[in-house]
Amino acid sequence: MPPGATEAEFAAWMGSIQRRVENVLARSLPAPQHAPARLHQAMRYATLEGGKRVRPLLAFAAGEFVGADPARVEVAACAVELIHSYSLVHDDLPCMDDDRLRRGKPTVHVEYDEATALLVGDALQTLAFQLLAERFASDDASVQLAMVNTLAVATGSRGMAGGQAIDLEATGKTLSQAELEYLHVRKTGALISAAVKLGALCAGPCPAQLEQFGHRVGLAFQVVDDVLDAEASTATLGKTAGKDSKRGKPTYVSTLGVARARQFADELRRGAHAALESFGENALRLRQLADFIVLRKF
Amino acid sequence: MPPGATEAEFAAWMGSIQRRVENVLARSLPAPQHAPARLHQAMRYATLEGGKRVRPLLAFAAGEFVGADPARVEVAACAVELIHSYSLVHDDLPCMDDDRLRRGKPTVHVEYDEATALLVGDALQTLAFQLLAERFASDDASVQLAMVNTLAVATGSRGMAGGQAIDLEATGKTLSQAELEYLHVRKTGALISAAVKLGALCAGPCPAQLEQFGHRVGLAFQVVDDVLDAEASTATLGKTAGKDSKRGKPTYVSTLGVARARQFADELRRGAHAALESFGENALRLRQLADFIVLRKF
Repeated sequence: MPPGATEAEFAAWMGSIQRRVENVLARSLPAPQHAPARLHQAMRYATLEGGKRVRPLLAFAAGEFVGADPARVEVAACAVELIHSYSLVHDDLPCMDDDRLRRGKPTVHVEYDEATALLVGDALQTLAFQLLAERFASDDASVQLAMVNTLAVATGSRGMAGGQAIDLEATGKTLSQAELEYLHVRKTGALISAAVKLGALCAGPCPAQLEQFGHRVGLAFQVVDDVLDAEASTATLGKTAGKDSKRGKPTYVSTLGVARARQFADELRRGAHAALESFGENALRLRQLADFIVLRKF
Repeated sequence: MPPGATEAEFAAWMGSIQRRVENVLARSLPAPQHAPARLHQAMRYATLEGGKRVRPLLAFAAGEFVGADPARVEVAACAVELIHSYSLVHDDLPCMDDDRLRRGKPTVHVEYDEATALLVGDALQTLAFQLLAERFASDDASVQLAMVNTLAVATGSRGMAGGQAIDLEATGKTLSQAELEYLHVRKTGALISAAVKLGALCAGPCPAQLEQFGHRVGLAFQVVDDVLDAEASTATLGKTAGKDSKRGKPTYVSTLGVARARQFADELRRGAHAALESFGENALRLRQLADFIVLRKF
């Protein structure tokens, strides 16, 4: 077994990245006492002490894979996490999913109010781009610009926000597997792929195999999310379970059933491994993360 | 009288910039037939054929002043206008100002729906940063990064979004003139100052006098907005008039009264002129714009 390959070693690595990301986010978010204090407190409430930090973990694993300086990767990782955090706050709003529970806590509009939640999401998105533009994510300004652009493409109307719009239109309809993939590649996959790519860009151009890995892991993440929404409990998830079917949202479970959805997720996991086949032990953390994402219980 | 100084020449200059900005925005926004079509149509509905384009005009005037290439300035000008457009869509939402009329048309959430309006604002913000990062706004990538950063600082929780948050908290309260200035410098002034600065950055560092000009014009814009909200009609404004006092929002009119608010706007206009005193005819368009902003009737 190669060094670092045990479950305990992987868990320790994850823990160390998660703590590092928490620290960088805490430093990067405006201080809670600075005006406008309520907005800044709500931005911190939405972002800190929550989540598995899957996107930052992928950015760090990709960065380690290409030999990037972790002090650069942490900027990219946190920018992606801020975008993710903004998207959760806006998705939970009454006009979207109208959700009251997130990461085991009341959602931002429940804890604060709707207008504040709207501004929190808006300002978290801005902060992501500000971080990438001001911090030293690369020693080459043109690479840093490419990172801003990569994050923007993954976030905007052809990426995550576009996926949300397609999701809204698809509610109550039955989608084919191809249509579902089109939707989820945008809604969830785009930002997860961007996390992998940004981690790699901290050291240089992103290898094509890594882009393929990111694409497969991004889709696998959403397939597993659909399965967990159908099978797990609200207490385990820290967010409302069973909400997709209640809302008539097309998911991999509604299209394929649970058993075939699980099987599809495992195919994607093996496809993600296969994309990195030629790299051997260098790709250990990436492979472990693909397994973690597909085999997780929450 | 210097060349270009007549009212007709200024009007012709404004018209040519406004048409140019309209064309660049129309090209930069995703095509209306591209998926997700409804989102893309709503993004265009929110942005095209509307407004005076005050921020792009200021960016172009600042760019002309420092001798920047207009092909670069147009990128910066459109990025700022996309941020402005996003902010209007979110401000009009029911949880914020709950407004049904904007630029003489139904607001985005009325014409489409609330969830779409939320995503439109989100995606317009992203597109602004994407434009600045991918288009050739400067021949120096590090200057381009500084432009992304300038726009982000003006837009985020210490700038425009922060101003909105302070505005929410101040509703129903009486503010001193100093508190009101603190609010409006963020809510409106930050993005107007950024427009001036970004136009200048297209050619190099922004002269301090130009930053001072932007600051004064930004505040003057809001003082005049407050006066017009109190005095003009809904038909003239193309948006609901008299809404500030109806909502108990502190304004320059509620704090100073109409006469002193007008007087303060004119002081700021003269202060903006004074900032550019040493530049003579080179600053003609900037001075004309300061006059236009303060003397406008809508």
